[in-house]
Amino acid sequence: MSSTGVVNAKAVFDLLHDELEAIEQEFGRETQSEVRGIAEIGEYLRAGGGKRIRPMLLLLASRLFAANGRMRASAIRLGAVVEIIHTATLVHDDIIDEAQTRRGRPSANTQWGNSKCVLAGDWLYMQAFKVTLQERNFRILDLLIDLTQQMVEGEVLQIERLGRCVSLDEYLDLIFRKTACLFSVCMRLGGILGGTTPKKEELLAEYGRNLGMAFQIVDDVLDLTASEKILGKPVASDLREAIIAVLEKCTPGQRALIETVMREGVFRSVRHEQVLELLEQYSGVETAMLKAREYAARAQQAIAKFPPSEAQRALLWVPEFVIARSS
Amino acid sequence: MSSTGVVNAKAVFDLLHDELEAIEQEFGRETQSEVRGIAEIGEYLRAGGGKRIRPMLLLLASRLFAANGRMRASAIRLGAVVEIIHTATLVHDDIIDEAQTRRGRPSANTQWGNSKCVLAGDWLYMQAFKVTLQERNFRILDLLIDLTQQMVEGEVLQIERLGRCVSLDEYLDLIFRKTACLFSVCMRLGGILGGTTPKKEELLAEYGRNLGMAFQIVDDVLDLTASEKILGKPVASDLREAIIAVLEKCTPGQRALIETVMREGVFRSVRHEQVLELLEQYSGVETAMLKAREYAARAQQAIAKFPPSEAQRALLWVPEFVIARSS
Repeated sequence: MSSTGVVNAKAVFDLLHDELEAIEQEFGRETQSEVRGIAEIGEYLRAGGGKRIRPMLLLLASRLFAANGRMRASAIRLGAVVEIIHTATLVHDDIIDEAQTRRGRPSANTQWGNSKCVLAGDWLYMQAFKVTLQERNFRILDLLIDLTQQMVEGEVLQIERLGRCVSLDEYLDLIFRKTACLFSVCMRLGGILGGTTPKKEELLAEYGRNLGMAFQIVDDVLDLTASEKILGKPVASDLREAIIAVLEKCTPGQRALIETVMREGVFRSVRHEQVLELLEQYSGVETAMLKAREYAARAQQAIAKFPPSEAQRALLWVPEFVIARSS
Repeated sequence: MSSTGVVNAKAVFDLLHDELEAIEQEFGRETQSEVRGIAEIGEYLRAGGGKRIRPMLLLLASRLFAANGRMRASAIRLGAVVEIIHTATLVHDDIIDEAQTRRGRPSANTQWGNSKCVLAGDWLYMQAFKVTLQERNFRILDLLIDLTQQMVEGEVLQIERLGRCVSLDEYLDLIFRKTACLFSVCMRLGGILGGTTPKKEELLAEYGRNLGMAFQIVDDVLDLTASEKILGKPVASDLREAIIAVLEKCTPGQRALIETVMREGVFRSVRHEQVLELLEQYSGVETAMLKAREYAARAQQAIAKFPPSEAQRALLWVPEFVIARSS
């Protein structure tokens, strides 16, 4: 990506190509275990791929600052750490949601059973901390322990709210814990490696948080509107923001329809089309996307305060890309 | 406990009374969460009690050394940490074993369901690391992360071996991961707080490891011989060392009987009395207890190398106490 070049996904991937490759290798190395059960699940999850958006954010954030000796090695190590943490939460999420598929393949829980997958997730959390410990940086450990605890609390909250219609505030708290919190930490970590000031670190965190909120709202909208085949997970597992918009306006009878879908967790008594019709009638998707665009804009505002650079332009572009996924 | 006094359980508890009280409070404080589900489970587990043997070991080990300024506060903090870690593993164990009771009460999994208990266990692990981070000591973090990972791996191995007769080596590896590993770390932590030398730290670790092995063998023997009511957990969930001794000598028909109990996990097709008869016939319990006494003696040998003191005498006494539990 030249300094005058057009920003697009390929240009950003090219910019980070070598580091992302190195992170992939580190991820593979660090998810080995002598215990066969864990090694198998670890390998299955790693091979399942993913967008690796979290390590990308960390790398881009670190590139906002002048390169320093330890930055590259640390960014690769911590890039693997955030992806390991993300993977651990995915395994646990699938257990809680009783998901059958993930990224177009059978989910790990259907292959190895819940108990083993729970422990494999735990092992991955510990491994993330172990790799982080190599950095010998208490601040980074504090951040990651707080993060994972917030995420685990989020999962408990999600179980408690399973099958009922949540309020908008509850929904926003859930997606903060599920996604935005980790995005925010990725940005902070990049900043810390770059030797940022506390003030700039807050801007980075703000970017990550807002981008994460936008990302998760778009994800939930895609869940609602895409077919099961495209996204590889059950359609009705996350009926959120767009539905909340509908709930605020619909009739009691229509509300009962949605509550049935929430309770059943799949489209059985109520058809997918009926929900899509309600979304249409009350502009549910549009309302959710409006919110997502607001968050995306706030992310851009935060990063606009940094001096222009390749990394800054890439970070300005990411929110656009996240929003564009929905169409 | 005066320097010439008789060592007994009451004397040891009196010696550590104030610190154990403080650890209990720290444990209570540190298992609070804003998330109701986690706070409830945490409180239920804490209130369930327990022997607090792990914090006791840590305290006694630290007392082998001259008191220093930060020792007491750190010992209380880390005493709470090892008990939090122990509690986390108990919740996960009960899920894996599908235990109905724990310490004479319904187990947490029967009250809150598996998913929530898994996450509560995870949260406790994170909380243990968070409290440990306050010590700002990388060595201690390394120890605890390695420990918990070994314990989690042990749980995976246990699942993989569930329902089949394991070899003696497999059994010893399992009880090392389940119990001896944490006992060993408790002793090391006490030594580290006391500013021990590497050589003495190894002796402390050896003590903890051997004591832990003895403790778990006795526990498994008690499982076999005591009635369900006394210990508060299902009788057949840990058919180990004593049974392995029987398996090495019995007839194929008798082996089939034991395999049936292992597979069914309860006394259904095979009665408890039939297993007790086999244990009697082949001196299974005696063989297991002989092994436990060997480990206990090795623990004592390790701690005998320290200069005499109240703490040393107490540590010499603990293995006797552990063995005496079986009769």
